[in-house]
Amino acid sequence: MRSSLQDSKLKIGILGGGQLGWMMILEGRKFPFQFYVLEENPNAPACKIADKYFRPDEYKQFVDSCDIVTYEFEYVYGKALEYASEKDKLIPNIENIKLKRARHEEKLYYAKHGFPTARFKIAENGTEALRIAEEEFNSRAVIKQSYGGYDGKNQYFVNGKVYEFLFLTEVKEKFVVEEFVNFDYEASTIVVRDGKKTIAYPPTYNLNLKGILVHNYGPIENDRIIEIAKRLADSLDYVGAMGVEFMVKGEDIFINEFAPRVHNTGHYTLDAAFVSQFENHIRAITGLELGSTELFCHGGMLNILGEGDVSLEVLKYGKLYWYGKDEVRKRRKMGHINVVGKSLEEVKQKINELWRIVYSNGLML
Amino acid sequence: MRSSLQDSKLKIGILGGGQLGWMMILEGRKFPFQFYVLEENPNAPACKIADKYFRPDEYKQFVDSCDIVTYEFEYVYGKALEYASEKDKLIPNIENIKLKRARHEEKLYYAKHGFPTARFKIAENGTEALRIAEEEFNSRAVIKQSYGGYDGKNQYFVNGKVYEFLFLTEVKEKFVVEEFVNFDYEASTIVVRDGKKTIAYPPTYNLNLKGILVHNYGPIENDRIIEIAKRLADSLDYVGAMGVEFMVKGEDIFINEFAPRVHNTGHYTLDAAFVSQFENHIRAITGLELGSTELFCHGGMLNILGEGDVSLEVLKYGKLYWYGKDEVRKRRKMGHINVVGKSLEEVKQKINELWRIVYSNGLML
Repeated sequence: MRSSLQDSKLKIGILGGGQLGWMMILEGRKFPFQFYVLEENPNAPACKIADKYFRPDEYKQFVDSCDIVTYEFEYVYGKALEYASEKDKLIPNIENIKLKRARHEEKLYYAKHGFPTARFKIAENGTEALRIAEEEFNSRAVIKQSYGGYDGKNQYFVNGKVYEFLFLTEVKEKFVVEEFVNFDYEASTIVVRDGKKTIAYPPTYNLNLKGILVHNYGPIENDRIIEIAKRLADSLDYVGAMGVEFMVKGEDIFINEFAPRVHNTGHYTLDAAFVSQFENHIRAITGLELGSTELFCHGGMLNILGEGDVSLEVLKYGKLYWYGKDEVRKRRKMGHINVVGKSLEEVKQKINELWRIVYSNGLML
Repeated sequence: MRSSLQDSKLKIGILGGGQLGWMMILEGRKFPFQFYVLEENPNAPACKIADKYFRPDEYKQFVDSCDIVTYEFEYVYGKALEYASEKDKLIPNIENIKLKRARHEEKLYYAKHGFPTARFKIAENGTEALRIAEEEFNSRAVIKQSYGGYDGKNQYFVNGKVYEFLFLTEVKEKFVVEEFVNFDYEASTIVVRDGKKTIAYPPTYNLNLKGILVHNYGPIENDRIIEIAKRLADSLDYVGAMGVEFMVKGEDIFINEFAPRVHNTGHYTLDAAFVSQFENHIRAITGLELGSTELFCHGGMLNILGEGDVSLEVLKYGKLYWYGKDEVRKRRKMGHINVVGKSLEEVKQKINELWRIVYSNGLML
């Protein structure tokens, strides 16, 4: 355990230069750390505020010059992740990423360790996936390609019409086929673990559309979500902040997936909590005392998706975080707006007002 | 009034690279602004995170390349201030700085406009100041040199022993001599004004020792402080965030001084309020909608003065802001720790714990 600031002049490397890295740096600047970023696009949000920028082919110099390497996105920079792990600098550890990158492994892990998750089968290819969807799940299933899935990519909701997905017979890769859960709502929590202590932010209600988070708000009173998410972090021997997503149906809860990093559903902690998920991630990976996850009030967030401009009227209702990305694309996360309120109702109303302003021409996903 | 983000890609210049500029940039990064800093020491806190750094002799390029120029310290860079003012880019305006730099003008302003302040006389030189202290104030007075006073510099507390200050007879400059107010406590508030709307954060109790702030906490319920501070901002036609310090004695309040910028007693707003003084300053000077000054909870701050290291035990009680200054000096502000709590008592207790940790060898001022 580090005992004083002067023992803690660390160089922290972040793999990926997106908004999650950007907020890690903004929140981490309070400490005497340097932040190095490895990323393909030198104009990505985190690169612009990093102490030093590295191209992907410079991954060895990057890892060698850092004391600790973390990541803000787990699907890329495989060589850098491997090398940082070899050098014993990668936190959270690479096992979490491997599990995350292979959806069938993730689901098998839940099953093996007794974590509640929707009933599933593993298919060796697309043809088998469609057969399972039809025969085992009565054509009401979610088919997820095992590799390369995030933000709703490579996920297919089969709702009685298997023939609409016949193109999947071309795909010779593993799939997870799971029961379609007609959930009451989606929820998530952010767990933070430093290796000894495991804490969690209160759960939130999340609205995902076409596999992408649009808004969330909380807290929800649900101790089982907290308990299971903490147990998952402990079971994975996780260090850092991690998002765990659930589907809730009546008394039942199902883990949908975990993300071994800071998470979009935790952005509201920048404003509704004393210590944000970003600061707590930094504290956890550097061995500093974790901060309180208690909320001051009710809070929430609306993502700004695929919009290159926003009316400043939004500032009446909340705090804008504009990521400064160089290109607008459909579905792309361009920024978000955090809101707080004295009740869940107040937060929901503010999110509704913001939705009207941000998506005045409709939300295109 | 700017209507959308894309109308607001501003380059904001900050005169001075200290911690106030550093926090302005950290808080302003959410907006699509660029931050340029003019400062003598390229290793000063704000310089390290600025988009562009300018030396003092480059003040013309600096001002010419910015859309708006603001400042984090009002005692230096006179030419740059004048030039930015000429170019109509300086916010808050230069009249505030001129008033602030000449203490006798500041006091005369209070008197002229009916703001409560301690009874005072103006002396043309040190000899006259001592005579006034003795004859008018019965040798119980505060003698303040009119120019060059901040953080307790050039201030003398005469407590019955005028002869201890005979060295002042050498000084041929203007002084303010004011009645010694045996106040119950010192307080301050941060006012924010955008030219139309004037809002204020709740007042705090402040502890100044040898003229330097050590800690503060709040809120205090005191509507007169708020009302007078707002009226002062209106009277000065002020734009931006501004600190106003008071002495409180029974039912009486006296303005001690104002600071035409973000203020050390407003650091707690980073954590106890939804929108901090720094973000609101940025919103005010750029013409964006002001944010709420409501507090989530009770809050406070302990300054880290003249200490080059700090035990990480402080993280149990609060959030550390370490400015990363390159040199430790006695009385120098090296960082601060923000705390929050459910009551004033809880905040005070945390500040006491922090004091014990930070100043384990005693506080040297």
